[in-house]
Order: sequence, then structure tokens, then C-alpha cells
Amino acid sequence: MKCEIIAVGTELLLGDIVNTNAQYISQRLPDLGIDVYYQVVVGDNLGRLIETIKLAGSRSDIIITTGGLGPTDDDITKLGLSKALGVEMRLDKPSLERIREQFKRYKTAMPIINERQAYVPDGSKAIENDNGTAPGTIGEYDNKIYIALPGPPKEMIPMFEEKVVPFLKNKSDHIIKSHTLKVIGIGEPAIQECLGKIITEQTNPTVALYAKDGEVQIRITAKTQDPYLADKKIEDIESRIRNILGADIYGRDEDTLESMVNQLLRERKKTIAFAESCTGGLISSRFTDIPDSSVSFLNGVVSYSNEAKINMLGVNRETINKYGAVSMETAMEMASGIKKISNTDIGMSITGIAGPAGGSETKPVGLCFIGIALDSGVESYSYIFSGNRLKIKWQASTKVLDILRRAILGLDIK
Amino acid sequence: MKCEIIAVGTELLLGDIVNTNAQYISQRLPDLGIDVYYQVVVGDNLGRLIETIKLAGSRSDIIITTGGLGPTDDDITKLGLSKALGVEMRLDKPSLERIREQFKRYKTAMPIINERQAYVPDGSKAIENDNGTAPGTIGEYDNKIYIALPGPPKEMIPMFEEKVVPFLKNKSDHIIKSHTLKVIGIGEPAIQECLGKIITEQTNPTVALYAKDGEVQIRITAKTQDPYLADKKIEDIESRIRNILGADIYGRDEDTLESMVNQLLRERKKTIAFAESCTGGLISSRFTDIPDSSVSFLNGVVSYSNEAKINMLGVNRETINKYGAVSMETAMEMASGIKKISNTDIGMSITGIAGPAGGSETKPVGLCFIGIALDSGVESYSYIFSGNRLKIKWQASTKVLDILRRAILGLDIK
Repeated sequence: MKCEIIAVGTELLLGDIVNTNAQYISQRLPDLGIDVYYQVVVGDNLGRLIETIKLAGSRSDIIITTGGLGPTDDDITKLGLSKALGVEMRLDKPSLERIREQFKRYKTAMPIINERQAYVPDGSKAIENDNGTAPGTIGEYDNKIYIALPGPPKEMIPMFEEKVVPFLKNKSDHIIKSHTLKVIGIGEPAIQECLGKIITEQTNPTVALYAKDGEVQIRITAKTQDPYLADKKIEDIESRIRNILGADIYGRDEDTLESMVNQLLRERKKTIAFAESCTGGLISSRFTDIPDSSVSFLNGVVSYSNEAKINMLGVNRETINKYGAVSMETAMEMASGIKKISNTDIGMSITGIAGPAGGSETKPVGLCFIGIALDSGVESYSYIFSGNRLKIKWQASTKVLDILRRAILGLDIK
Repeated sequence: MKCEIIAVGTELLLGDIVNTNAQYISQRLPDLGIDVYYQVVVGDNLGRLIETIKLAGSRSDIIITTGGLGPTDDDITKLGLSKALGVEMRLDKPSLERIREQFKRYKTAMPIINERQAYVPDGSKAIENDNGTAPGTIGEYDNKIYIALPGPPKEMIPMFEEKVVPFLKNKSDHIIKSHTLKVIGIGEPAIQECLGKIITEQTNPTVALYAKDGEVQIRITAKTQDPYLADKKIEDIESRIRNILGADIYGRDEDTLESMVNQLLRERKKTIAFAESCTGGLISSRFTDIPDSSVSFLNGVVSYSNEAKINMLGVNRETINKYGAVSMETAMEMASGIKKISNTDIGMSITGIAGPAGGSETKPVGLCFIGIALDSGVESYSYIFSGNRLKIKWQASTKVLDILRRAILGLDIK
């Protein structure tokens, strides 16, 4: 089946945002046996949108739009769909009810214009939006499937995964199963070398690598008519890959580094506290993105100033004067300090230079010292991360979480 | 003049890469008085590429392609252009010479296939590529301009800026300027209602709204022949909008809530510390995304456990027992506590229920209490945010930053 993805939004044509939605959907469809032939971006202009949808309908089997489902006059996707398909708009009462409920929860009156969001092209079903007010729509006309998804990725992605993927799976005549291994501590080129023929000689399952935010994902995809056989094929390849990469594989599919570290601590009934300088609270924030993280995470300190390191964490003023706030020694005292004041099993710390200013020849931007204090003693490690301030913060926080994971599992730190 | 951008490459349709070239070019063209009407992505398929170019030529004045200029069989853009335009391919000798020179510099023999890169559609000129072997092309056919640029951004961007922009400036008869106002504390539908005719009756400048992450952006775009007049037109509308929305407009263009709050504190030489519970460090992390935030931000505590609230911040155990950890009273003691221990001018706190568990009838998921301690005293405010855990964390952190902004400016808190 051929698919065309139409993004609707003048903000894309002005270059205010980049079309990551098209990329996301394009990445996912091949697993469902669907090929993307075109991605199109069109502005908030009804005439051009209608022409674009008609053209897509003439050359593709599945037409997916993103964006333009909001309540304002600019939001014309559903109207464009109905005009292109030659159907009326229909008020979907359950959607209206849901939108009203959402406003009730905010304790604000629903503006009249939000009612517009509850209209769908006649013959299409509304798709519930669990992360916003705009419902999506899905419908079949002349053997072609038309799907409208919201523009914000935070709404689009869950709706696509939870509502659209199961629908499209049913339409496909073979099944494609895929699993993703999550890898950290080894780069994409090195993995490519390690795995060698497992990647290049596989056709079913296929093995593909994606690097993302300092991690690498290995996607194993099998295409069969028998689900049992697909699982078997994937398992075989997965165990070959696990034999090679070992503990650098931290999880699978929905696992995140945050969720795995949370789970490991909970299983072992261990508690943790973080003392952060250069990451500015990002580590605590990522850790607490996981529900029930309060079981293990008791306390965090963002000791940005020297005084905070001294007063809050008990770092010796002399240590800072002698070795600097960004030093192995300060990192170790921060780790011991946060463990002690928080009365946790583990205390972790980071101090570094996030940039863009503050670097020197001996201590360049990106240099970070990470400390980990356990009942058995304190260790510290140094790294140099590259990129802009936000990239350095992110990589540094990832490294802290991975060190924690390896420490809990008794693995060597890398 | 209307422009259409065609990206050529199967790697885009597979979602391996995101189409940043289209974004880049789209951002630059309005300043030259050129409107982008469509962005299209098509794979390395000659038939579909020819159709796509023909369609673009039928509806746009300027057609810019990116990608597909390499030496391999996959690289079909120039062939597609010549077929769509009904012209032959012509060997451009200076280009061949340049490509040979480049290989000489690398001290390697030029592979035969690279000769293909020196062919251009008859009637087009080659554009020198200072950062790679593939020349671009530019040509006019039937009063339409066809431009082919390389795919790698490192080659595309300099070629676009140095060779294409000067060419297009000569062709354009007017310029487009635009500015964006950043708004917080009032939703998109409410803004639409407030601004009413300013949005609907404007044609030049145009006024458009975009909602994003709990904020709204208002984009004002003017199209004139005289840059001074464009500025004037934008200023007029901007001041009308500012009269209506007042302090809900926190910034303009590149400003972010984080950068504005940082700037306000720095200008007033005020220091800040945050005590976070439900946001888990996100507020400190967002604040410290800004370079030099260490001037104002001294300290943060992520007091996730009751013990941390008591031991670190000096919250009374009795307060927590009597009113709960999520209460107005605890928020106020947290704010005073963090101000005191950090010795800052301002202390802010938040305690709430990020979910998905932990809610009750009287204290539902999303309920947050925010405290702000100044030298003059402590205040607190309560809100209910909706969405999943991450959305609640994000909205709550945004609210804290906005309360801080309003407090510094002496505005009412909303």
C-alpha cells in the first residue's frame, strides 16, 4: 500500500518548525507493510489544501494529514478533507462531550469556537485525543483511507501509535513485527562493526540502527504471515546481538534509561539522591519523569553556586579553592554530601562546564566530573561532552543515569 | 512570487532524516519577498520526480530542488529536471574541470561516474559548489525559475546564501518582514476572541496565531516594497495588540520565558532559588538552559520526600501532617525555606500531584500549589493542570516561571 503524508500549516512553510511529524510517520509505516511515496507541506489555505488532498487521493492508498485540527479559523484540515471528498461535516457528539469535559477539568468555560473541533467529515470516525482537545479522524472513501492527526507531536505520536497503528495493521495482508533494542555506551559506527554481517546479510528479519540523543536503537523487523514465526525469527537475531553487545543493551522497546534505572532501584529497594551542578536539575527531572519514582528518589540539590555546594552539601571550601568547583575532588565530596544529607543508599553528583562560556585550556567546555557514593565508598569519573549547552546537559545527564545503571548491576563503568 | 521546494531522496521518505533543508530555505525566502506555497518530498524515482517537477512548474514561479545531485544511479534530479522541461543534458566543461581539480586536491583519481555531475539541463547554468563535488544549477524556462541545490546542508546552505540569494534578490519586487509576539497566561481561543478583527480583517500585515506547549505565538507579517514601511506597518499592529494583551505578551521573536526571566533577574540584580517537588528539577533545569544563568540562580532543591522537605527546607513536620505535603501551607514554608537557606532575594516552590497515581477527590492529579517568597513576605497560588505526567510537569514549570516574571514586574499573578 502506498501512503502520502500531508502536513498542513503555514508555520511549516515559513520555516518556523521542521516537519518532524512526516519523519516520525515515515519511519513507522514500513513496519506495517506500507510505503511512503510522497510527503507534502501545504499552508492554511483551503483551495490549495483541497487540491493537495485530491491529488493525494488520486495517486495513493492511504492519505495521512497532520496539523490544522485546532479551533481557530486557520485550522482547516477537516473542512478541506470534507470538501475534497465531497461530503458534509457532521457534529460528533461524543467528541463534543470529551472537549467539554476537558475544559471542565481546567475549570474554565469552553469557548464557543472549540465546538468546531468536534466536527468530522461525514463517513469518518473521530479518534480520541488523550493529550489535547483536537480529536483526529479516520475514514474510508472509495477504498482509500484518509486519516487526520493533530500537529503537536505530543498529541500526534500517541494518537498514531495507540489508535492508527492498530487500524493499519488490520488492513495489511501480512504482519510485520519489530522489536527495538536500546543501547548505550557504544556508538553507531562501533555497533555497525561489531554486528557486521548480522546487519548486512539479513533480509528477514532486517536489522537497522538509529542513533538518537547519544543512544543507539537497534530495530529488528520480521515480515511473515504467522505471528509465532515472526517472534521466533526476532528472538534468534536478538540473542545473537545480545551475545555480542552484552550489557551495553540496557532495554527493549518502551524501556528508557530513566525507566530502567527506576526499576532496578525499586527491585533492589535502594534509594537515591542527586547533587547537580552543570546539569541544573535535568537528572532529577528525567528520573522523576517516571511514575512512582518517589519510591527511590528522595532528594536532589542543584548546587549551582559554590556557597550552595558548601552550605547544602558540605563540600569543603578548601577543596573548591584548591581544585576548583569543576574537579574530581569536588564531585566526590558532592556525592558523599548528598548521600549523607539525604540518608540514601546511593548519592550521585555532577559538576562541569556546560558552556558556552567558562572553558579554559585545561578545563574545556563540556568537561564533567561525575561522582557516585555508595556505602562501600566514593568513585568518580571524568568525561568531555561536545555540542551546545543543551546537548552537553543532556549527554551528561544520560551518562549519570548509565553509570548508576552499571553500578547497580555491578558492571564496569564506561 | 510563489515558490515550491522539492526535496529528492528516498532517505527522507523512510524517515531516516528530517527535511531541514526545506525549513532553512522556507525561513529565508519571505525576506526576499517570495512566498513558499508547497514543500514536497519525493523518492529517487524518475517518473514520480518528473511528475512532481511538472506539477510544481504549473503552479509556482520558482522551483527549488534539494538533493539527488550525486554521482550514482540514485541521483536523478538533473535528469528529472531536463525531462520535465523537455531539454537535453549538456556537459558543462568548467564544472568538469572543477570536479577534476577537487579530486586532484584529494590526490585521488576521479571515478568515471563523477563525470555525470558535470552535466546540467540545457539552458541552465551550473552553480559552483565550494563545499563538495556536485554543482547546482539555475535556469529560467517559460518565465519560471528552476534551481537545483545539493542535499547535504553543509553544501546546500553556503550555495543558497552565496549564489542563490543574490540572484533571487534581483528578481523580487518586494520584501516580507515578520515578527512574532510570545504570549502566556491566555489561551489561543481567548486571544482570538480578544483580537477579533485585528486577525480577521488584516491582509497586510497578516496576523496569525500558533499554540505551542501552553504558550501562544502571534506572528505579524508585512509585505511591502519599502523596508521602512514594513517595519512601520508591523509596529502599528503590534502596538494595537500590545494594548489589548498587555503583560500577557512576555517577549518577541527569539525570546523564551526562560531567557526573559533570566534577563529580568539579571537587570534587577536579583537572585533566585527553587524548591521543587512535583516538577522534579524541571524548573531549575529550564532556568539553567540559559547561558550565564548562574548569575541569578544560586541553588535548587528537589525535595521529593517529606524528610527532604523537613530536613533540607525546614518545613514543619506538623504542617505536613496537618495539611499534607501537597498544600498551600507546605508550599509557603518551602518557598520561605529555600529563600532562607540559599540566601537569595526570591525563593519559589511548587508541590503537587504529577500523577498518574496519588490523586484523590479533594486533591486530584494535576493539583499544584506554588509559593513565592520575597523580602516582603510569602504568597501562594493553586492551579490544576491536565494531561499526562510529563505535560503536568511542563505546564507547572511554565506557570512557576511566569509567576516569577509577573512578580518581578509587579504585575498581578494569574
